[in-house]
Amino acid sequence: MSKKTKVKNSQKNRLSAEQKLAHLGKMLTAQIEKKNNPFFEVAIRALSNVTFNKEKSLIELGSEKQKRYFFNVGMAKKFMQTLLVGEACLMLQKEKKTTSLRDLYYIIKHTLGDSDENTVDEQEESDECIEDLEVGLDELRENLNLFASNRGSMVGEITIEDAGDTIDLRRLGTGGWSIPSIVESSLIKFKKVSAKYILMVEKDAIWRRLNEDKYWRQHKCILMHGQGMAPRGVRRLLYRLANELRLPVYILTDNDPWGFYIYSVIKQGSINLAYESMRMAVTHARFLGLSSHDPGKFKLSSNVMIKLNQQDISRAKQILQYPWFQKKKWQEELRVMLKNNVKLELEALSSKGISFIGEDYIPKKIRDKEWLE
Amino acid sequence: MSKKTKVKNSQKNRLSAEQKLAHLGKMLTAQIEKKNNPFFEVAIRALSNVTFNKEKSLIELGSEKQKRYFFNVGMAKKFMQTLLVGEACLMLQKEKKTTSLRDLYYIIKHTLGDSDENTVDEQEESDECIEDLEVGLDELRENLNLFASNRGSMVGEITIEDAGDTIDLRRLGTGGWSIPSIVESSLIKFKKVSAKYILMVEKDAIWRRLNEDKYWRQHKCILMHGQGMAPRGVRRLLYRLANELRLPVYILTDNDPWGFYIYSVIKQGSINLAYESMRMAVTHARFLGLSSHDPGKFKLSSNVMIKLNQQDISRAKQILQYPWFQKKKWQEELRVMLKNNVKLELEALSSKGISFIGEDYIPKKIRDKEWLE
Repeated sequence: MSKKTKVKNSQKNRLSAEQKLAHLGKMLTAQIEKKNNPFFEVAIRALSNVTFNKEKSLIELGSEKQKRYFFNVGMAKKFMQTLLVGEACLMLQKEKKTTSLRDLYYIIKHTLGDSDENTVDEQEESDECIEDLEVGLDELRENLNLFASNRGSMVGEITIEDAGDTIDLRRLGTGGWSIPSIVESSLIKFKKVSAKYILMVEKDAIWRRLNEDKYWRQHKCILMHGQGMAPRGVRRLLYRLANELRLPVYILTDNDPWGFYIYSVIKQGSINLAYESMRMAVTHARFLGLSSHDPGKFKLSSNVMIKLNQQDISRAKQILQYPWFQKKKWQEELRVMLKNNVKLELEALSSKGISFIGEDYIPKKIRDKEWLE
Repeated sequence: MSKKTKVKNSQKNRLSAEQKLAHLGKMLTAQIEKKNNPFFEVAIRALSNVTFNKEKSLIELGSEKQKRYFFNVGMAKKFMQTLLVGEACLMLQKEKKTTSLRDLYYIIKHTLGDSDENTVDEQEESDECIEDLEVGLDELRENLNLFASNRGSMVGEITIEDAGDTIDLRRLGTGGWSIPSIVESSLIKFKKVSAKYILMVEKDAIWRRLNEDKYWRQHKCILMHGQGMAPRGVRRLLYRLANELRLPVYILTDNDPWGFYIYSVIKQGSINLAYESMRMAVTHARFLGLSSHDPGKFKLSSNVMIKLNQQDISRAKQILQYPWFQKKKWQEELRVMLKNNVKLELEALSSKGISFIGEDYIPKKIRDKEWLE
C-alpha cells in the first residue's frame, strides 16, 4: 500500500478538499503527458443507481460509474466546465473563502476566445459540475467552500463556537442564531451542552411559539427549524449534533404527505442527494407528529381539518410505495390519512389553546413514547 | 378636549394596543345598550385612497373611511369575524404571548352552533380583519402581538437586547442573528452602538460574503439582509435603527426592476401597506447599486449581463410611471436599463474577484457619493 493510499484510508488523516482538487489536476496532467485521452470518473446519479440500504436505513448511491473524456464531442464541454469549477474551488480553498453556487457560476463564466461561445450559459451547468466533483472527490460541497442559501434558526441548551465567536444559544432572545449553510467542524464547534434532545420543527411560527414559551429551557433541549424542507445546512448540523453529541432527535411537521416527506429526507436522505446520505441522514430521528391519529387522541374539532386535494392523495399513494415507508406503522399512518381524507397543520393545535403544543402535546408524545420511526 | 382625547394625542402616553382593543369593545357595547345598529369605522384600503406624499416622500393612505355595520346582510359576517380577531388579540395581550397569522386563523375558527357555517373558512378572511384592525386602531399588527414569517439576518457594530438577552452582534460568527418578525421597542432595544451606517443587501449570499470578509468591522457598519423582498420585521427594524440611531442607510440590490422595487418599498412603503408607511418607510435610504451605469464604470464583461425578458421590460415601464420614480436620475437609470436591454445580478461582480464587492465596489460608491435617492 502506497503512503498516499494509507493516508486516504485513514479517517483522521484523510486528504483535504484542497489536496483532492490538486490531485485531480495532477492526475489529468499525467494522462496528458502520456498522450492519453484525459478522463475522470463520476458516479452515475440516477434512480437506476440509487438503492435503499435497509440495514443502515439509508438511501444510497450505487457503484455504477461513468468515465468522462476530454476528446469526445458529447463530453468535451462538460469536461472543460468541471475543470473550471474545480479550479475555482481550489482558488477558494487557497484564499480560505466561501461562496454561493450563483457566485461560482459568475466566477467561471466567460466568453471563449473570439467566439460567441460561453464557458457556461446557465447556472444549472455549473451546479451539475459541482455535484460531479462532490461525488468524484467524495467531498461535501460545503468542504469545497460552496454554500447554498441559508434558512432556519436555532436556540437552546448549548453553547457553540462559530468562526471563533463563542455563542450561548440560551441567550439569543426571540430571534435566535441564523443557521448558516456551511456548518462543518472547521467552522462550527460544540461547546457547553446541557441539552438532552433535539426538537426539529417544520415551521418557523411554531419554533417562535416554543421559543417564546422557553420550551427548550424547561425541557432541556435544542430547538431548530428549517422553514419547510430543511436546507442542507440545517440537515448537516442536525446530523452533527445528533451523532457527535449522541442526542435523540424528534421531528414535528404538518400532518400531510409533504410533512412526512420532510421527515423522511432528514431521516434517510433523498434520491437527489443519495451520494451524501451518509453525511446528512439522521437515521435515528423520530417522527413525533402530527399523526393521522392525533385528531381522535387529542379531541381536535373537525373544522381545523383540511380536506385532502388531488395532489395530496397522489403524493400519499406514492409515498406508500417507497421502500423506506414500508414499516407497518407508517403504512397505517398513511392509510388512515387517506381513509379520513383530511390533513392537519401544526397550527391546528392552537384551537386547543395557544401554548397547548408545548405544554401538552409534545411532552405527552415524548413521555408516552408515541412516535414513529 | 376630554381627558381621553388628550391621552390619545400625546405620543408618550398613547393608549396601548390592549387599551385600544378594550375601548373598541366598550364602544360597541355602548351602541348596543343605546339600541343603535353597532358599527365601527375602517379606512378604505384601495388604490383610490392611496397617495404619494411628495413632501414626506411617503406612500400614504388617504382619509376615506367606511362604516361597518352589524345589522347589514353584506357586512354582518365580516363584523363578527373582526370582533373574533379583536377578541383573540386582546387575549394575546393579556397572556403576553405572540402568534402567527396562521395560528390566529385556527384560534378563531369554529363551527357556529348547530349549523354547517364556520366563523372563517380561509385564512384570507382573518388576515383582512387584521388589516382592518391595524388601520382602525392605528396600531401595527406587531403591536397586536401577531407575527409574519421571519427572514433575514444581521451582524455588525451594535449590541442589542432581545427579550432581555444581551446580544453582541459583533460576535455571532458566520450565522448572525435571525431577525424576528416582531422588533418593537418593548422586545428589541439598542445598546452599545459603534456603527456609522447600515448596509442592507437584497441577497443572503452577498451578506455572507461581506460577513466572511468582516466588511462591517472594517467599515464600522451594521450588515442586514432580507432574503429578497424585505419582510415586515426587517423593514421595521431598519426603520427603527435608521431613525432612533440616526444612521444613513445604503441599499444594495440586483440591477433589475425587481431590485429597484425592493429599494422603493424600503424607502417609501408599498401600496398594499400604505397605512403603515409612516412606521416602516426609511425615507432617507440611498440606493447604492447595482446601477445600470455600473457595467461601464466597473468594466464588467458583457457575458455576466442577462438580457431583459418581457416581464422585466413591462415591469420597468410600469415603474417609470410611478410618482416616486420621477426624479431625473431614476428616470435615466430605468431608461438606460431599457436601452441596453440587460440586467445584472450582484453576483456578477464576482467575475472581477470574489471580494471585489466589499473591497472595491461598495467603498468606492460610498466614498464618491455615487448613490440614487
